[in-house]
Amino acid sequence: METKRTGRQTVFLPSQPSVLAAACAGGKKEGEGPLRNSFDLLSSDSRFEAASWEKSESAMLSQCYLAACEKASVSPGDVQYVLAGDLLNQCVGSAYAMRGCGAPYLGLYAACSTMAEGLGLAAMLIDGGFCDTAAAATSSHFCASERQYRFPLPYGNQRTPTAQRTVTGAGAMILSMDGPGPYITGVTTGIITDVGIKDMANMGAAMAPAAYDTLTAHFRDTGRTPEYYDAIVTGDLGVLGSELLRELFSRDGIDLGLRHMDCGRLIYYIEGQDVHSGGSGAGCSAAVLCGHFLSGMREGLWNRILFAATGALMSPTTNQQGESIPAICHAVSIENRRVTAWV
Amino acid sequence: METKRTGRQTVFLPSQPSVLAAACAGGKKEGEGPLRNSFDLLSSDSRFEAASWEKSESAMLSQCYLAACEKASVSPGDVQYVLAGDLLNQCVGSAYAMRGCGAPYLGLYAACSTMAEGLGLAAMLIDGGFCDTAAAATSSHFCASERQYRFPLPYGNQRTPTAQRTVTGAGAMILSMDGPGPYITGVTTGIITDVGIKDMANMGAAMAPAAYDTLTAHFRDTGRTPEYYDAIVTGDLGVLGSELLRELFSRDGIDLGLRHMDCGRLIYYIEGQDVHSGGSGAGCSAAVLCGHFLSGMREGLWNRILFAATGALMSPTTNQQGESIPAICHAVSIENRRVTAWV
Repeated sequence: METKRTGRQTVFLPSQPSVLAAACAGGKKEGEGPLRNSFDLLSSDSRFEAASWEKSESAMLSQCYLAACEKASVSPGDVQYVLAGDLLNQCVGSAYAMRGCGAPYLGLYAACSTMAEGLGLAAMLIDGGFCDTAAAATSSHFCASERQYRFPLPYGNQRTPTAQRTVTGAGAMILSMDGPGPYITGVTTGIITDVGIKDMANMGAAMAPAAYDTLTAHFRDTGRTPEYYDAIVTGDLGVLGSELLRELFSRDGIDLGLRHMDCGRLIYYIEGQDVHSGGSGAGCSAAVLCGHFLSGMREGLWNRILFAATGALMSPTTNQQGESIPAICHAVSIENRRVTAWV
Repeated sequence: METKRTGRQTVFLPSQPSVLAAACAGGKKEGEGPLRNSFDLLSSDSRFEAASWEKSESAMLSQCYLAACEKASVSPGDVQYVLAGDLLNQCVGSAYAMRGCGAPYLGLYAACSTMAEGLGLAAMLIDGGFCDTAAAATSSHFCASERQYRFPLPYGNQRTPTAQRTVTGAGAMILSMDGPGPYITGVTTGIITDVGIKDMANMGAAMAPAAYDTLTAHFRDTGRTPEYYDAIVTGDLGVLGSELLRELFSRDGIDLGLRHMDCGRLIYYIEGQDVHSGGSGAGCSAAVLCGHFLSGMREGLWNRILFAATGALMSPTTNQQGESIPAICHAVSIENRRVTAWV
């Protein structure tokens, strides 16, 4: 058997599980952004016909998961593991969304990096022989997040230029032992980093070092260079965090160039939609991966993607107690062709 | 290769990963309870020398993880995956505890069932060939939980008879490909259940059906009967939830008898410590497993344990919005001797 463990943080998946199908959902603002045509579901009032913003988030995620299952021709209860989590306290977005689906459920908390953690674990559970199908799903909702993390919406508070806007969005991806691709070829699991940033309105700065750390680990562990990938997709560093990431790599003499793309920058018109530093939230990278990037891979725009979602692991309470912001990034290799080794 | 998937929710682990070491920590009240001698670390003021209750929880979990690593003779950064989560908003107990450890980190949210989810996933990651060592860890803190879920402590509010007390406790377990045992022989992953209970002061009633559901699935999937196990350990149904579980099984003509034990009942003197229906919290089942039960297995008191931790997946927000309480239970088989098949 090939060695799965490669270096300190990375595993190679010999069986290369396939993406069977994916779906993504978004709210009003996301439906007005540049990626509007990549969404399977859009709610014009971001409510998804539910009576509270928290219930809207669950409804959105539930509908998104059902849409992915339908595309995959899999019954929602026949998926053998659903891995999901979100930003709401006690991850209620996911628990209530998946309450009725009837599938074995593994709850995650990885903040905005949830899609990468879930996708990586789902692929490992398939590769390890524990299941034939598994799903990764996550969501975030601007209105629910705003009142939980910041201020009630009616306050109409002003945000600083470095602030990112929580995306109303969800993504769900169904993986399978066999399938048409793209394939999950490997996973690099992040280590928590903390460079001392305490400004909750500057998550990009807190998360960029985590992205740098995990991407560097991926290249070190695999022997691959950034040039191997057609797209290195971070989420959600936003405008400022993306600049910081490129700066960190440039110190190593590495120019990520145009192959680096950030979900938080892509999902909105940065200038035209008044979103300051861009989008964030667990649903941001999930929706952009499941829609924009997966479609692009199927069309052959990109054949090799390194999906590196980032998360900030603080809470308003730890912030109020003067703590800095720990961050993490998990990376998943997604390729249109199966590979037999890292390089 | 043997089939790992057995039935709808269960996997058999052919390689049978070993517990390498475990440690548990507790607070003042836990140090006055019947299991006081099973704790590795006790803080006489429940503060663990930290400046806030949230920081106390992180300090407790961090110290507990380090103690487990020391017992296992493994450097904290050499553990190849740390799987952890807790009850605090955004799971900050775990993130801040593991911030400095230097190990790849996978965040979980499974409320009070976190230890079972983490233990099961850690064992699967080893069995799947992704790592040689992995850790599962979780915590809860009475004072941090009380003010987050219920009332600030200085209110001195009265609790209802069905209420359980959040345990100040933590548990960490290091698993390894090889080791002296006990061994993780299989995992049954839970499906979310919701029987419509809305009373947050009666978690036992909300979680008992989840325990019934997962234990029934385990027996159905494996062909084992309750008699196979020396101990069927739920956590944390408390006094009332335990009664409900036995009643649910008695309808099927099954008497769980004395082999059923509940971590929430064991950790306190129910009458003498004024704990109403018993203990709860992610740290309750984790500490009781890592201390009391693991010691007992090593002494030969029990050779075969089915550890079935339960979790309630609501939040104060969903409760205030009139929602019922979804619950889940994950079960892990822990045995002193390796087995080659389920029966």
